[in-house]
Amino acid sequence: MPKTFSSLIIVGVGLLGSSVGLAAKKRNLAESVIGIGNCRQTLDIALQRGAVDQISTTLDCLTEITDGLALICTPVGAIVELAEKIAAVNSNILISDVGSTKGNICCELEKRLLKYDACFIGAHPIAGSEKTGPEFGNADLFQDRLTVLTPMSTSCPRDIERLQVFWESLGARTLLLEPNRHDEILARTSHLPHAVAAALASLLRASDHPFCGAGFADTTRIALGSPAVWTDIFLENQHRLLAVLDEFGSRLEELKSAIRTADAVAVSRFLESAQEHVPKPYGFSLGNSLPQTQG
Amino acid sequence: MPKTFSSLIIVGVGLLGSSVGLAAKKRNLAESVIGIGNCRQTLDIALQRGAVDQISTTLDCLTEITDGLALICTPVGAIVELAEKIAAVNSNILISDVGSTKGNICCELEKRLLKYDACFIGAHPIAGSEKTGPEFGNADLFQDRLTVLTPMSTSCPRDIERLQVFWESLGARTLLLEPNRHDEILARTSHLPHAVAAALASLLRASDHPFCGAGFADTTRIALGSPAVWTDIFLENQHRLLAVLDEFGSRLEELKSAIRTADAVAVSRFLESAQEHVPKPYGFSLGNSLPQTQG
Repeated sequence: MPKTFSSLIIVGVGLLGSSVGLAAKKRNLAESVIGIGNCRQTLDIALQRGAVDQISTTLDCLTEITDGLALICTPVGAIVELAEKIAAVNSNILISDVGSTKGNICCELEKRLLKYDACFIGAHPIAGSEKTGPEFGNADLFQDRLTVLTPMSTSCPRDIERLQVFWESLGARTLLLEPNRHDEILARTSHLPHAVAAALASLLRASDHPFCGAGFADTTRIALGSPAVWTDIFLENQHRLLAVLDEFGSRLEELKSAIRTADAVAVSRFLESAQEHVPKPYGFSLGNSLPQTQG
Repeated sequence: MPKTFSSLIIVGVGLLGSSVGLAAKKRNLAESVIGIGNCRQTLDIALQRGAVDQISTTLDCLTEITDGLALICTPVGAIVELAEKIAAVNSNILISDVGSTKGNICCELEKRLLKYDACFIGAHPIAGSEKTGPEFGNADLFQDRLTVLTPMSTSCPRDIERLQVFWESLGARTLLLEPNRHDEILARTSHLPHAVAAALASLLRASDHPFCGAGFADTTRIALGSPAVWTDIFLENQHRLLAVLDEFGSRLEELKSAIRTADAVAVSRFLESAQEHVPKPYGFSLGNSLPQTQG
């Protein structure tokens, strides 16, 4: 399985897109890396940093490509339309993404790309931070991190393997998940925490600021992620996020009830049992016991 | 105002207690530092680390002290009883604490210590981490951090000043707050976040662990704090914590409603406005514009 593509096309050169470019160039995974986006200034920064070899604000440069991988690294709400545009320009390009939601996107594209005989396989590298922009791109962002691939039953096995090898060449571990299963899990591990962090921060008054410690800072940090990116994520994963928000509300009611009745045993049990799900180096290890595939 | 006490008595030599000892010894703030606690093993570690000069499992060694400061560094549920015992043994000792709740404790002790003509002034250094035990004690834990002092109207100004100088000598900035006001603020900046972090973690299944990133880890880290310590805090600040839990629930309902109706503008606004309350180096600066006193 060749590690390289002739062309790596990165659509959206923000934190994730520029990191993919930097990582791929560092590891020689493509003969040429093309950055595509709306904003010339952002594209210029990505070019200056060496995340891409050439830049463009249109997809016209893709027509002649014979062996290409296009990663759409935009907010999730833009992915379906962009993927279809790429397929229309050149159906030879394997299309993927790095978005935090997968279900709607994969399902919709499976239908839309039929007419082009083009292929989209969803992916989600669980990496990054609340920072945005190519100035924060990092060639090692994906090293030892998990990238979830979410092929559909109609995805070509060779394309799946090629994408998997690509991500593993960036240093990532990979795992295959059914797209809706991905969204169900990420609702709990990522989308809900973001909503909760924002709600926590929103309760503060400015006069509270001196009384915030490292605990408050760490618990709310993720709420600094781009509101545009996260609005898209919340709305794309709407039903599952609402479901876990309900579940979370019930869990809080359980705790409130124990506090209201001054039930020290129940409060303590609640706090203790939560601890088995806090990640190491604080709690459980992020890197261990990775299953090969999950349904 | 002399910086030093003849004797610094640390009751409970965990993370905070041992850090006070290490900090005081590093800065020569007491001729002798006495560690008092229940557990001989813990006391031995504090002694070996140089956080204290002598250790005891009883208060008997306090009877002859003429110039002493006793800091009670136990879970908040034990503070009132311990303070009264110290006052009964030696009413010359200025008694304080480092607990995360202040209202009940200060109010109760104002009454109970009258008969001994002894003085308790509450304090709360907003410093520390989820770690526990003297092995994690750190002489610079309080450097540039805020310590809130919560004197009552009956507190002696000289004692307030002496305590303030003590904390400032450990490198802390100090601020005076009315005890109930302290609890109201800390309910929002500390107690609610802890409850929420635990509830978030409690929703996970073990099979979700590989899909947790740094965001989930940071958001739930504080839930690793000692369940015994935090059960006490929740029950001591019961009414205010329940009030902010209700407020938090309402804020989440607002977000849920925006998600349910796919109102991208409302979701985005919610996320944006939360960001002004996220601390720097991520958001607002933890160190700036500290008011002298607050009602």
